[in-house]
Amino acid sequence: MIKKNAFYAQSGGVTAVINASACGVIETARAHKDKIGKVYAGRNGIIGALTEDLIDTTKDSAKSIASLRYTPSGAFGSCRFKLKGIEENRLQYERLIEVFKAHNIGYFFYNGGGDSADTCLKVSQLAEKMGYPIQAIHVPKTVDNDLPITDCCPGFGSVAKYVAVSVREASFDVASMAKTSTKVFVVEVMGRHAGWIAAAGGLASDVNCELPIVILFPEIPFNKEKFLAKVDAMVKQHGYCSVVVSEGVQGADGKFLSDQGLRDAFGHAQLGGVAPIIANMVKDALGYKFHWAVADYLQRAARHIASKTDVEQAYALGKAAVQLALKGENAVMPTIVRLTDKPYKWKIGVAQLKNVANVEKMMPRNFITKDGFGITDKCRMYLTPLIKGEDYPPYKDGLPQYVRLKNVAIPKKLSDFKI
Amino acid sequence: MIKKNAFYAQSGGVTAVINASACGVIETARAHKDKIGKVYAGRNGIIGALTEDLIDTTKDSAKSIASLRYTPSGAFGSCRFKLKGIEENRLQYERLIEVFKAHNIGYFFYNGGGDSADTCLKVSQLAEKMGYPIQAIHVPKTVDNDLPITDCCPGFGSVAKYVAVSVREASFDVASMAKTSTKVFVVEVMGRHAGWIAAAGGLASDVNCELPIVILFPEIPFNKEKFLAKVDAMVKQHGYCSVVVSEGVQGADGKFLSDQGLRDAFGHAQLGGVAPIIANMVKDALGYKFHWAVADYLQRAARHIASKTDVEQAYALGKAAVQLALKGENAVMPTIVRLTDKPYKWKIGVAQLKNVANVEKMMPRNFITKDGFGITDKCRMYLTPLIKGEDYPPYKDGLPQYVRLKNVAIPKKLSDFKI
Repeated sequence: MIKKNAFYAQSGGVTAVINASACGVIETARAHKDKIGKVYAGRNGIIGALTEDLIDTTKDSAKSIASLRYTPSGAFGSCRFKLKGIEENRLQYERLIEVFKAHNIGYFFYNGGGDSADTCLKVSQLAEKMGYPIQAIHVPKTVDNDLPITDCCPGFGSVAKYVAVSVREASFDVASMAKTSTKVFVVEVMGRHAGWIAAAGGLASDVNCELPIVILFPEIPFNKEKFLAKVDAMVKQHGYCSVVVSEGVQGADGKFLSDQGLRDAFGHAQLGGVAPIIANMVKDALGYKFHWAVADYLQRAARHIASKTDVEQAYALGKAAVQLALKGENAVMPTIVRLTDKPYKWKIGVAQLKNVANVEKMMPRNFITKDGFGITDKCRMYLTPLIKGEDYPPYKDGLPQYVRLKNVAIPKKLSDFKI
Repeated sequence: MIKKNAFYAQSGGVTAVINASACGVIETARAHKDKIGKVYAGRNGIIGALTEDLIDTTKDSAKSIASLRYTPSGAFGSCRFKLKGIEENRLQYERLIEVFKAHNIGYFFYNGGGDSADTCLKVSQLAEKMGYPIQAIHVPKTVDNDLPITDCCPGFGSVAKYVAVSVREASFDVASMAKTSTKVFVVEVMGRHAGWIAAAGGLASDVNCELPIVILFPEIPFNKEKFLAKVDAMVKQHGYCSVVVSEGVQGADGKFLSDQGLRDAFGHAQLGGVAPIIANMVKDALGYKFHWAVADYLQRAARHIASKTDVEQAYALGKAAVQLALKGENAVMPTIVRLTDKPYKWKIGVAQLKNVANVEKMMPRNFITKDGFGITDKCRMYLTPLIKGEDYPPYKDGLPQYVRLKNVAIPKKLSDFKI
């Protein structure tokens, strides 16, 4: 068997821990130099493969690679670029295989969400057909936590922790001010279709620290009257309340409450700005003074408050992807399997990509309270272990010391390719 | 000498470390039980004094009081309620003295910004006139960092750290996405008149980690053409850029770029939402895909990423306030005196309240680069020590364990008072 090289790429929105998965992939591959040659990373994700812009990760020291574990963002660059169906876009898929072949790449590790799981599967299938078999392994990543089969997705736990901690802190703040000033605080969080991140706001309140929190989920059609009544009741009872609103909250007509009319490269609506709409709605109807925040990238980049569980799982999945490749697996994705809730125990499992691609996991209805504004004990049981533990990066002069890699490209062997 | 009780109250917008000052006041008073009786805290600030709603802090254990050191927000409630001039509002001042007299209060510790320094001074003056002398000591607090004389204000260092860390993290995120997606990230931060907090965004970039950052200060009249040219140049050079915009940024006409038309109780404009305005401006003129965030309360409540320097100074100033009182001082404020920059050394000083009240400290022009979009080395030298060090709160199940006090009121002795 000729020793094959590996290709690794990051796809879609980056997270606080996607580099921890990269770290897991690269360190594990380095530990098996007898079987895996070099790990090349795609500059800006799959675009790097199409344009033959391959980063030689061996140019970076063991220390730099180890630092990826605590560095947020995508160290090699990510992209929002979806390969379409093979029939429409056969040339692109063929180009990928051609590049892999030119650089003796036998392992394709693709680190992303649902779209990239689909791409990963197609690469595997086409490579097979083209007579240059590639072991394609998908490494799950998405703050949205909407991939099927796996119990959770790396990136989500850290966003969830950021949201839970921030909502607790802001609620303490509003509680202090409510007598003469702000009574309602609205914070907008990510989650286009699934309310997992918004749900994490509910963790801010627990038996040791009860706080009045109203959550607006994308899964629950927005009902203005019920919402205003809920906020009013909370303020009358507690003097204040915090509202956690998902960017993807929709009216009964299925329209996003705030749609800027923009679309991203995947054709998804580009959202933002529902917090001020909700806040002004409260002010107009109830007269309460408000403040609002939109966390946006701050939430998914917040490595400083990452969940230890999340970091460990992100690393473990990167490591497992390489181990699966070494076992000869193809068109699979390592998953998190939850063994027990209390104490929280998990192990790595394996999912077939054909069962993962293009399936979205929504919040189960029984994770949301009957009135649609809170989380149930079942949901709390699911979420709590995912935000558990702190995993602080090193600091110097008050700032986290995140690594930036050299990202040296290897020489190209092929002619240019237009994407 | 009859042993007098002390009154402590929190005023204005709360911070991540105002409770650390409360902790300093209460612990130091408890250590001098021979001279200071009980510490009563005003429920919701000065309103608690006016309404005789006095919290008996002795009902909380030493452990609970110690926990204030790492708990954000105002543990006794704060308020936005400014006592006007003595001539207009003599009744309120007289009521304060009456309440203090009824409860044998001889020390008035007022923890707030410029407005409360003014109130503190007036209480001292009127008490003198009314023949019931009160030692009034102001404990500085404001995220805006705009109090004079003191080198810095508790609360600011932690917001500065939050902003510097968040801008670094978000910049890493945008850098990863810029090839095919977001090229400009805009984050709005607090700072109504002074650009101290916005300046902290500049710390995200340093010699070890250069990042393209454009800052919009309230001190620099907004020039749309220059701003767009700067952003365009940054994106062309680096592929992306982050914009840190102060909520208080104004046009050449002196109007806030975003004024919701609301006013707070102090008559200040209630701002918010300049980030989307700036972001859309960039999109319209340059066509770059953008994301924007508004940190709002998240920034000032973020005790999870508080600056160690800030926490230590907040505590030290609370402690110093009591020590000044014990020395017989009146109408003063303990300050931070910077001794050296490198290594950073500081000590406690004392300012006369008549020199503090109603004076706003703006950013010196030489802290801002010539083009108006960045910070100078002088500014960096000033800011860096203030964000230095981490001071993490304890966690349980993934969440910070902030304390909530019992806040038991003492029996009232006087008739009701309408405010």
